[in-house]
Amino acid sequence: MKDKRGLKIAVIGGGSSYTPELVEGLINGYGEMPIAEIWLVDIEAGKRKLDIVGNLAKRMVHKAGLPIQVHLTLNRREAIKDADFVSTQMRVGMLEARKLDEHIPIQHGVIGQETTGPGGMFKALRTIPVILDICRDIEELAPHAWMLNFTNPAGMITEAVQKYSRVRTIGLCNSPINFKKSLATAYHVPEEKVLPEFVGINHLHWVTSALVNGREVLPELLAGEGGEYTASNVPTFGWDPEFLQSLAAVPTYYLKYFYMQHEMFAEMKESLRQNGTRADIVSRVEKELFELYEDETLEEKPKQLEQRGGAYYSEAAVRLMQSLYLGRNDIQTLNVANGGIYDFLPEDASIEVNCVVTSGGPVPLVPGHVPPHIKGLLHAVKTYESLTIEAAVTGNRALALQALVHHPLVPSVSTAKILLDEMLEAHRHYLPNFFA
Amino acid sequence: MKDKRGLKIAVIGGGSSYTPELVEGLINGYGEMPIAEIWLVDIEAGKRKLDIVGNLAKRMVHKAGLPIQVHLTLNRREAIKDADFVSTQMRVGMLEARKLDEHIPIQHGVIGQETTGPGGMFKALRTIPVILDICRDIEELAPHAWMLNFTNPAGMITEAVQKYSRVRTIGLCNSPINFKKSLATAYHVPEEKVLPEFVGINHLHWVTSALVNGREVLPELLAGEGGEYTASNVPTFGWDPEFLQSLAAVPTYYLKYFYMQHEMFAEMKESLRQNGTRADIVSRVEKELFELYEDETLEEKPKQLEQRGGAYYSEAAVRLMQSLYLGRNDIQTLNVANGGIYDFLPEDASIEVNCVVTSGGPVPLVPGHVPPHIKGLLHAVKTYESLTIEAAVTGNRALALQALVHHPLVPSVSTAKILLDEMLEAHRHYLPNFFA
Amino acid sequence: MKDKRGLKIAVIGGGSSYTPELVEGLINGYGEMPIAEIWLVDIEAGKRKLDIVGNLAKRMVHKAGLPIQVHLTLNRREAIKDADFVSTQMRVGMLEARKLDEHIPIQHGVIGQETTGPGGMFKALRTIPVILDICRDIEELAPHAWMLNFTNPAGMITEAVQKYSRVRTIGLCNSPINFKKSLATAYHVPEEKVLPEFVGINHLHWVTSALVNGREVLPELLAGEGGEYTASNVPTFGWDPEFLQSLAAVPTYYLKYFYMQHEMFAEMKESLRQNGTRADIVSRVEKELFELYEDETLEEKPKQLEQRGGAYYSEAAVRLMQSLYLGRNDIQTLNVANGGIYDFLPEDASIEVNCVVTSGGPVPLVPGHVPPHIKGLLHAVKTYESLTIEAAVTGNRALALQALVHHPLVPSVSTAKILLDEMLEAHRHYLPNFFA
Amino acid sequence: MKDKRGLKIAVIGGGSSYTPELVEGLINGYGEMPIAEIWLVDIEAGKRKLDIVGNLAKRMVHKAGLPIQVHLTLNRREAIKDADFVSTQMRVGMLEARKLDEHIPIQHGVIGQETTGPGGMFKALRTIPVILDICRDIEELAPHAWMLNFTNPAGMITEAVQKYSRVRTIGLCNSPINFKKSLATAYHVPEEKVLPEFVGINHLHWVTSALVNGREVLPELLAGEGGEYTASNVPTFGWDPEFLQSLAAVPTYYLKYFYMQHEMFAEMKESLRQNGTRADIVSRVEKELFELYEDETLEEKPKQLEQRGGAYYSEAAVRLMQSLYLGRNDIQTLNVANGGIYDFLPEDASIEVNCVVTSGGPVPLVPGHVPPHIKGLLHAVKTYESLTIEAAVTGNRALALQALVHHPLVPSVSTAKILLDEMLEAHRHYLPNFFA
Repeated sequence: MKDKRGLKIAVIGGGSSYTPELVEGLINGYGEMPIAEIWLVDIEAGKRKLDIVGNLAKRMVHKAGLPIQVHLTLNRREAIKDADFVSTQMRVGMLEARKLDEHIPIQHGVIGQETTGPGGMFKALRTIPVILDICRDIEELAPHAWMLNFTNPAGMITEAVQKYSRVRTIGLCNSPINFKKSLATAYHVPEEKVLPEFVGINHLHWVTSALVNGREVLPELLAGEGGEYTASNVPTFGWDPEFLQSLAAVPTYYLKYFYMQHEMFAEMKESLRQNGTRADIVSRVEKELFELYEDETLEEKPKQLEQRGGAYYSEAAVRLMQSLYLGRNDIQTLNVANGGIYDFLPEDASIEVNCVVTSGGPVPLVPGHVPPHIKGLLHAVKTYESLTIEAAVTGNRALALQALVHHPLVPSVSTAKILLDEMLEAHRHYLPNFFA
Repeated sequence: MKDKRGLKIAVIGGGSSYTPELVEGLINGYGEMPIAEIWLVDIEAGKRKLDIVGNLAKRMVHKAGLPIQVHLTLNRREAIKDADFVSTQMRVGMLEARKLDEHIPIQHGVIGQETTGPGGMFKALRTIPVILDICRDIEELAPHAWMLNFTNPAGMITEAVQKYSRVRTIGLCNSPINFKKSLATAYHVPEEKVLPEFVGINHLHWVTSALVNGREVLPELLAGEGGEYTASNVPTFGWDPEFLQSLAAVPTYYLKYFYMQHEMFAEMKESLRQNGTRADIVSRVEKELFELYEDETLEEKPKQLEQRGGAYYSEAAVRLMQSLYLGRNDIQTLNVANGGIYDFLPEDASIEVNCVVTSGGPVPLVPGHVPPHIKGLLHAVKTYESLTIEAAVTGNRALALQALVHHPLVPSVSTAKILLDEMLEAHRHYLPNFFA
Repeated sequence: MKDKRGLKIAVIGGGSSYTPELVEGLINGYGEMPIAEIWLVDIEAGKRKLDIVGNLAKRMVHKAGLPIQVHLTLNRREAIKDADFVSTQMRVGMLEARKLDEHIPIQHGVIGQETTGPGGMFKALRTIPVILDICRDIEELAPHAWMLNFTNPAGMITEAVQKYSRVRTIGLCNSPINFKKSLATAYHVPEEKVLPEFVGINHLHWVTSALVNGREVLPELLAGEGGEYTASNVPTFGWDPEFLQSLAAVPTYYLKYFYMQHEMFAEMKESLRQNGTRADIVSRVEKELFELYEDETLEEKPKQLEQRGGAYYSEAAVRLMQSLYLGRNDIQTLNVANGGIYDFLPEDASIEVNCVVTSGGPVPLVPGHVPPHIKGLLHAVKTYESLTIEAAVTGNRALALQALVHHPLVPSVSTAKILLDEMLEAHRHYLPNFFA
Repeated sequence: MKDKRGLKIAVIGGGSSYTPELVEGLINGYGEMPIAEIWLVDIEAGKRKLDIVGNLAKRMVHKAGLPIQVHLTLNRREAIKDADFVSTQMRVGMLEARKLDEHIPIQHGVIGQETTGPGGMFKALRTIPVILDICRDIEELAPHAWMLNFTNPAGMITEAVQKYSRVRTIGLCNSPINFKKSLATAYHVPEEKVLPEFVGINHLHWVTSALVNGREVLPELLAGEGGEYTASNVPTFGWDPEFLQSLAAVPTYYLKYFYMQHEMFAEMKESLRQNGTRADIVSRVEKELFELYEDETLEEKPKQLEQRGGAYYSEAAVRLMQSLYLGRNDIQTLNVANGGIYDFLPEDASIEVNCVVTSGGPVPLVPGHVPPHIKGLLHAVKTYESLTIEAAVTGNRALALQALVHHPLVPSVSTAKILLDEMLEAHRHYLPNFFA
């Protein structure tokens, strides 16, 4: 990349409400990583949002006085051609589909969440064929590009791309960077002085060590003396202190769906009753955001975007691009292929792990200690994920049923069958592999 | 062994109602494996039963006209000294404890079963220290003996012995032999013409291949055309046909606790309401059996014993002893150390697997195909089992909590804590490691 | 197979001097395994031998009074069609090529042997493409056949078939059966009462345990008190006693090429001076055998065949066929895919291991103990083998060079290059992949 | 460490001629890592050298105007007490022993080298008990210290410490840093812009990738277009170009002992004839160095030290200490425990691998690609190494014999026995475990 006049970035799902954050990041990082072109691409149904967001992006670049060209297009191939980075942030079926992902399971007594459980499974089933289609374009038009995948469920999407395409991809989540920032804040040190170790996979990880200035602070965190680790866009139940101590690790927020299944189900059901699904809430927030974005005097990312959740997503993205571009060899927590890191998972499974980001790509660091008590749950969820990917690619109902049955949150075959029937039907339009 | 005049068999828990079946097996197999002495040993609290069963055993031997000496004793060391085989069949805390194992979980919405779930866990916690104590005696007094372990949960007990003693042990369950016999019956062939392959661990296995006269009949079994696989002592729900086909394996009965969690819970709750716990039912059956055994005109195993469940247990035991003694090199399904068979489980985990039984001991046969969709569940349950063993040996409450939390049937940390508190308290007398 | 009137056996390389032994075995085993047809097939250049051997076979069958049809043909596809078993025993390039395999290395200071070292490598390079061509026919014409491979180097040939075809294949060597018979003879017990354990690969194995009537006799063997393990067709150096004791295993004869490199080289060089290559000697023996075979009064296998070496080859073959046919579940030592048996070798590497031969095929038994000190050598030789197979299939000179360089008997890159150049040139006619 | 007034460094073998380089490094790095005390410790026999070197060290510190106290002592425990870093650079038996290590093998036709082959083995046998003795002191007196091990054979010594002590140790070699510097020089970039990947173990590694400014230059290196990789203290044979291309990796210089066995042996024999052993040459160099060091006007490291070989050793050491102290998270190539990096080697084997050096210690980076053709040789040498360590710790002659027999450079058991006998006898004084 280094010989070029400037980089080309393609943003698939460019009309997303998150885009201004990404653009802000690219502007702020311009000194170290000059950008020549940003291509925002979306589908026909997203044209209006694309225009609104795209015009805001142009105003932001203009205000910054940088020679970055911002292109808006519905032609994906044009956007991808010769790109250095392709970032993906999309929602196949949009918020309507998410609503179903959240609603249907809960009606049958199962947690409905957009990345965990049957909801996440159906999001994956809808998204994987679309992502692989995009990959075909990248293989042809930008074979050297890095594809940064933010699209949820990020672990499964990344694994699908690694298994079924030759595209160089890295999966990204804001959960690890959030943890790092919280830790740094709690201990009043700069972020580069904290080094937590993450064991697991996307949305199912445990922090098993946390160095602050070279000192292990995990015992303090477990004793509740350190900072608290929560994502800002989810309700914060407290973890049981005895449980945390016996676990000897800090679980990610999403593990509450497993470790606090009853409480989370009750909470979600009550919230559904009061506010509708999370999808409904996000719809309202998005509506407000786009009203702001439309304001032609707005020339920067509005503060309100932070409410939307997904804090630091774009910081994570820009940091990753820069380290790949500059060969910074810094440590970032990314979703990559397992290789031999966890000997109980397949080599081509995606995992979430600290990596050194070299100019040749991320190189995973071997975790120092994998607590034995978490291996079973980790393996069980990864088994479900791999089955889901196979089901998405083949449209094989038997695989989809096995995936659901073996998901730790699905209590029985009979429930799995009901969920499968209802959700296949509900998303039929977005699941052509299953209805050929 | 071969140079001795005859073998010495020690039966720990000799007062069990199962003993007459074992004695019958030893009598029938005398021609191939001559027995000099059978030592039935029990604890003080079991003296009455020991006397009743022991006298029946003496009458049986006498009727058979064989020179086998039957000894009854409360002195375990005397029974073990120079034994060739030590078999264990015991219930620490007796049926009273089983009742609690079954009752307490179900009150908190969790399946209460004597080998699966929290019930099995507490049975293991009570039994492991006692078994290891017995092992100390065997190491000292009969270091070359084979210990045949029938005591449930057989997988965990066997694993504990393999990890924490030098005793040569093999775990035995009647579930695989039952499957073989059903298959042979269904296809009208002798038992040696069927060869099912078992993948998994004790009470959590899947039959992934079934040869009858060299022909693979698994597809027929899955399509419901072959025999049906059920243990005689448990209610028979039918498996969902679509599920079976997609699973591509025949699950053991005990997998219903996982795959049909709702239905099994409902069934158990209803049965509890009508008949009390399974422990209550067994109490009644045992009472009747011992009344029969007391009849001094009885000189053989009464037919009614078969109702008790545990069919073919003694056939399995005698067959195993004979193959070890004669070096028969036949295939038996046993609980042994994993070694490298399942690369996702620890090497010292116990697994249930086809073995060739040589005069040097059982040698596992490598399973041909391990379905990927079952790996997660298998790993999850084995994780729970290994944690339970550690907890049993150390009396560490944190490990016990982690074991419960990571059991797939326990829905949340809060439930796990309640169960742990109540069950520790209920069994306090049998858990000295936890209350030191 | 069981429903057929009788089996069809195809023998590729049917004109081999070994064939009468195989025919004798099939005749003797007729009672348990009825044969309808034996097809002996050979290439045009082997027609004369095929006729001589084939007519002897017909006379043998006639004398036995059995309804077996013996067919002689040059049409391989006709022979293979619907066969139940295909056995292969061939020598691409015939004894002339073997002479070069033995001669060229020794001129450059490297051991020249037909299965070990550069000689074996070039035999593999010539043979693998031919075998894979045969496999194409089997896949099409007899997809359910078992292919029994005797062709040397048997380990590499078997691995190549397993990697590059869908044919069900098993590799066979007479070395393990010889060891078993020697052991039984030495201890005056029937063969089924001995159970040695073999660790390693074809022509590179170690006996790490030897049960006789259930008693471990390895220490006696190592102390020189038991039988001696030598193949009858190779000179017998004695092993150094201290070395044997420290090794704690009995190495196969072929390990002398590695452990006694100097002595073996000297021996081979001297033998070459006196008698020519082993190929020359075999030529003379074969000439005499075929003179005997031509005698029309001969109706049975002549005693002199035993001198030829390869004792018990046909016994091994017939025993294997019978166990597959009858589902005997007996233990035989075979060359099959590694799977997870040796965790330091690839899963698709061929290994030589005790197997239970079921009607569904051989199932490997997990070796009890793999001595750590042999792992490196075993891995090094397997690495060379796998590279050789890749080179044979692709004709890639770089892979062939790497194979030679990494063979433990080749001391340097410069020697490897000379050997590669000379041997490629010498065998050019039989290496079309390298000279396309 | 961070709260202390300044660090304490203990240098075992402080009288080494290398010490001035280390002291220079510590002086230059003082700004980033303040040192309070340097303790140079040596044995009685090294007192004169210790005094000479130690006084030079004091003059160097004085000239630099830094508040570092330099202590000279023969009391190891005093030096170790509360040290932050302990570095080891010693030669048990001194250059006299090295002379024997080099001389004896070559007389029997085997390469005699101080780290590779029988020479290195005996150096390990002498050194390991001494190192472990030092570790006992560190465990007691400075349990939090990092032990930086330079003592050759560094891989084996490090592995022994990791296996048989609780001391936190890291093995260091100057070979990787040399390669990096050569590469940077060849491509005219700063060192931090090159990133080679090392696969293997100490003195047996292959560079399988080399990024320069993010561009892969390995193909250029293999084609001879890039820089050349040689250690400055060994003769430079050229690698065969065809071999290099087919290997697809750059082998370390020490691999010439394996890949160019004949040429290296001839070279060593000739050099021995002309100059005596390498030990003799080093003796002369050291003599001259100590004459320089004695000069009381000398206040800095003399240029001539660079001739001694071992360039950049101290740079490597200081860099490592600083990264541990500062948590720099930079990439260094170190000898650490394998863990699961190479699945064909034991988890506790030492390997040489790129690591990120965090304040919690080095964390290995997973190599991207391990060429299959090198696995066998790598495994073979590591097998020899592990056997050697066991032999050193136990004094078991059988293990030592197996180590020698399985070393790829030892051609036969008979040679191994002669070498073992002669070398055990020659070093008897330093091998108390073998002569108890």
